[in-house]
Amino acid sequence: MGWSPVTRRIAITRSRLSFHYSSPIPGLVGLKLQYTSAVHQNQTTPMSTSAPRKALNLSNINPHVKKAEYAVRGAIPIKSEEYRKILAAAGTVSASGSDSASQNTTPNHNLPFNDVISANIGNPQQLGQKPLTFIRQVLSILEYPALLEHEGLFPKDVRERAKWLLEQVGSVGAYSQSQGCFGLRKSVARFIEERDGHPADPDDIFLTAGASSGVSTLLHTICASKETGVLIPIPQYPLYTATLALIDATPVPYYLDEPLSWATDVPAIRGEITKARAAGTELRAIVVINPGNPTGATLTEQNIADVISLAAEEHLVIMADEVYQTNVYQGEFHSFKKVLRNLQKESPGKYDHVELVSFHSVSKGMIGECGHRAGYFELVGFDKEVQAQIYKLVSITLCPPVIGQCLVELMINPPKKGSESYDLYNKEHNVIFGDLRERSQALHKAFGKMRGVSCQDPLGSMYLFPTITIPPKAIEAAKKQGQKPDEFYCMKVLDATGICTVPGSGFGQKEGTWHFRTTFLAPGTEWVEKLEKFHEAFMTEYEG
Amino acid sequence: MGWSPVTRRIAITRSRLSFHYSSPIPGLVGLKLQYTSAVHQNQTTPMSTSAPRKALNLSNINPHVKKAEYAVRGAIPIKSEEYRKILAAAGTVSASGSDSASQNTTPNHNLPFNDVISANIGNPQQLGQKPLTFIRQVLSILEYPALLEHEGLFPKDVRERAKWLLEQVGSVGAYSQSQGCFGLRKSVARFIEERDGHPADPDDIFLTAGASSGVSTLLHTICASKETGVLIPIPQYPLYTATLALIDATPVPYYLDEPLSWATDVPAIRGEITKARAAGTELRAIVVINPGNPTGATLTEQNIADVISLAAEEHLVIMADEVYQTNVYQGEFHSFKKVLRNLQKESPGKYDHVELVSFHSVSKGMIGECGHRAGYFELVGFDKEVQAQIYKLVSITLCPPVIGQCLVELMINPPKKGSESYDLYNKEHNVIFGDLRERSQALHKAFGKMRGVSCQDPLGSMYLFPTITIPPKAIEAAKKQGQKPDEFYCMKVLDATGICTVPGSGFGQKEGTWHFRTTFLAPGTEWVEKLEKFHEAFMTEYEG
Repeated sequence: MGWSPVTRRIAITRSRLSFHYSSPIPGLVGLKLQYTSAVHQNQTTPMSTSAPRKALNLSNINPHVKKAEYAVRGAIPIKSEEYRKILAAAGTVSASGSDSASQNTTPNHNLPFNDVISANIGNPQQLGQKPLTFIRQVLSILEYPALLEHEGLFPKDVRERAKWLLEQVGSVGAYSQSQGCFGLRKSVARFIEERDGHPADPDDIFLTAGASSGVSTLLHTICASKETGVLIPIPQYPLYTATLALIDATPVPYYLDEPLSWATDVPAIRGEITKARAAGTELRAIVVINPGNPTGATLTEQNIADVISLAAEEHLVIMADEVYQTNVYQGEFHSFKKVLRNLQKESPGKYDHVELVSFHSVSKGMIGECGHRAGYFELVGFDKEVQAQIYKLVSITLCPPVIGQCLVELMINPPKKGSESYDLYNKEHNVIFGDLRERSQALHKAFGKMRGVSCQDPLGSMYLFPTITIPPKAIEAAKKQGQKPDEFYCMKVLDATGICTVPGSGFGQKEGTWHFRTTFLAPGTEWVEKLEKFHEAFMTEYEG
Repeated sequence: MGWSPVTRRIAITRSRLSFHYSSPIPGLVGLKLQYTSAVHQNQTTPMSTSAPRKALNLSNINPHVKKAEYAVRGAIPIKSEEYRKILAAAGTVSASGSDSASQNTTPNHNLPFNDVISANIGNPQQLGQKPLTFIRQVLSILEYPALLEHEGLFPKDVRERAKWLLEQVGSVGAYSQSQGCFGLRKSVARFIEERDGHPADPDDIFLTAGASSGVSTLLHTICASKETGVLIPIPQYPLYTATLALIDATPVPYYLDEPLSWATDVPAIRGEITKARAAGTELRAIVVINPGNPTGATLTEQNIADVISLAAEEHLVIMADEVYQTNVYQGEFHSFKKVLRNLQKESPGKYDHVELVSFHSVSKGMIGECGHRAGYFELVGFDKEVQAQIYKLVSITLCPPVIGQCLVELMINPPKKGSESYDLYNKEHNVIFGDLRERSQALHKAFGKMRGVSCQDPLGSMYLFPTITIPPKAIEAAKKQGQKPDEFYCMKVLDATGICTVPGSGFGQKEGTWHFRTTFLAPGTEWVEKLEKFHEAFMTEYEG
């Protein structure tokens, strides 16, 4: 039995935070959080060396959980939440951060800002983006169908859609089929057919609790052992490496081509494949995020076709993360499914074996309903026995949230021309789209003016991912604090301005380069000016 | 590269279902589903021996996914869905099954029933249970806050609660903290304090997407390797063995004491612990489901104290699945937390190291809001470093559905006496409770009349789990069809009556005994009569 030294550590003061860094992938550094805090007073008597040991301690839990890293909600966001609490206590912002009264003239705190701006995560409604009226009207009826009895309360198309959705699901309080309600999947299939000009089958569509949940389902199915390799773009959305760490499979990073608007560099991927296979990794899948997160890239049709050809030759499942498909500000979105079907038509036989899964979500786009946790994935070309195993796997968690399933349907099937809600929907939609595009350009322009900062054109998604030059003196200072240079920079940004960003090391970047990711969701331009001012001061301090 | 023979199998006709059985635990048999069906016409050209291989096939995907079994949504429910489709096509029931027009006098189908009754799963609202008005009124405002502008639309307390919830979360469309919105967790802590008479800390509460998601989080953290063992009651809710199969850890079954109202048999557990340790299993945790699923048992305070003492001595984390805490029809619910805190007071030092996690859910109780996928767990006595790892793990899926988080708050904080909604809430609540209790007794009485059937008293939850005697001729007939006797029985029940139940082998049972689980959620008594009639015919056929 024996006494573990760990049990003695739990009496340390609350909120002592320390951050540790490690790099399982070259260039990809996550933030690992460890905190020790006082246990609740009522839970324990004072510690003594004879206290019986607990079953669980940091050294004996699942090592893969410990290994998983997720910087988007890592050390800097956690510190920003502490600042938010201080400001909320001082009465300058609300605890949820959604509704700030930031222009309080007599701040009752010592922070150099009156507001925390969460630019670390694509969370539009937290930053004041208004939900689309049509969608929320329908959802309110689904929650309380008696609202239908009030004749004049809602437009006709809202009432009709709500009635139709209720016919499909029965009640949003009832479990649906594990794969999602059939009637809603039929509607999603229709949307995909119209988007791509190729048929889609509702049986191949799985409604999910957000794209993250779908990605986890697929990676769990695909990865058979430690040796299973999945090609991951670098920089990437850290969900992928975190999930692979949990499953204990092997992420195989490939670098995106920054000077070429972060395009997918197919010859470079071939090189990685050769190296990984030589090292004994059995490659099974390739992840592509288009439009890119964190890069903001939008891939060309040719670039997508090249990836599909590679996957066909190398027998790789394509995992296409297409959650930003409507967040395209320059150029056009091409779905992997459409390009694959076109290739299959052009070259019969050559691409028929390709397996593709495409993810979509209600969290992004112009609706930004991330709090509802909903999305879908479509399986294309999968072995039906494998598909049956995926069905079984999702059935263990019963079903995705039903109100979220309905929200997916509302997202892909907006009010039709001539219906009562059409004009308002379009107006709201276009204002959001216009604001996003405008802000992306304003932020991009600001980066262009900053010393030692360069940033690719904002083509899509909700992020910019500029390269920053960090002066040697700052690199030295970071080292002293046990921080990576970009993490040091982002922490300084937060401390000085209240703007929460994520260091490039959380997503991965080429050795010796430094970046950070910021959303362009926050309204106004004041925060951009603050960022500019901070950067100038930072450079002056550390270049001097 | 080579060509796999599996790719050739995918051109077989749609819907060829076959069921295979295996038994990883003695007495526990799940239903494994394999189906092969035609791929969508547009997806493939005709198969030839030279078709390039797919990356994934049944033989190379994650073996742990294949191993996982989940009978509650297994072969029989899948067949029931097919019946439902036939009836829907014939116009006798709706596709969702929620709203049946079952008394159609001229059925346009060949089935011997006009309605499918899904008694396989605790899905109250699918079977017509009405959501509680107060709860859904508040949720409708959360989805569409502009409803607050309509003065007379909702009672004052509904409006006030909605406003308060909106202050906490900002918007239900925004991500919350990964652990759940702080203001709501404070409310949950208050509820636990009032329920148990002992303090609770909001920092120890994690809001979740249903209890299933919480169980998965905990098992993922606890299980470090294949050798990690978790004690699982038999019969059990198959989520536990399915999740352990996915994680590749070791379920260690312990049998519940059927003649003693399915009590937890602590001496028997000690025997299992000794055996498991001798076999090299490192035991870490014990799962207790109270009130029981599928057993319907409600544990006594003494029984709970005995389990806690065992866990304290053996250094086991207690995983208390308490989702049916308000579904108690005889006796009283005692939470593990309350009993633990009482023990800690009575015997200082002896129980301080005990680690307990308690799960709760909005899916059951009198609200039955399973489609919303929401719940919480409370950690008690956990090492704070381990707790930080759990926080990191849940942060990878971002946050639980926010509307569901609000629903948790509404569940644990119903309208107060004197408020406008109080009377209606209580009336609706009590009708549901009374109906459940009444139906549990009626069904129990019916089982008492059936030949060779015996059933423990219905104390709690939503299920009865009778023992059935299956005549040797029926066992023989089952064997011929490659089915377990209880699976054969349940399939016959479905084919003859449209009532979908789950065979005891899906939950585990003592060798040579046979059971099935049925909910008592379906309204009316007609289906119970059908069941009686079926049983009599079955016995006559196979006893003769």
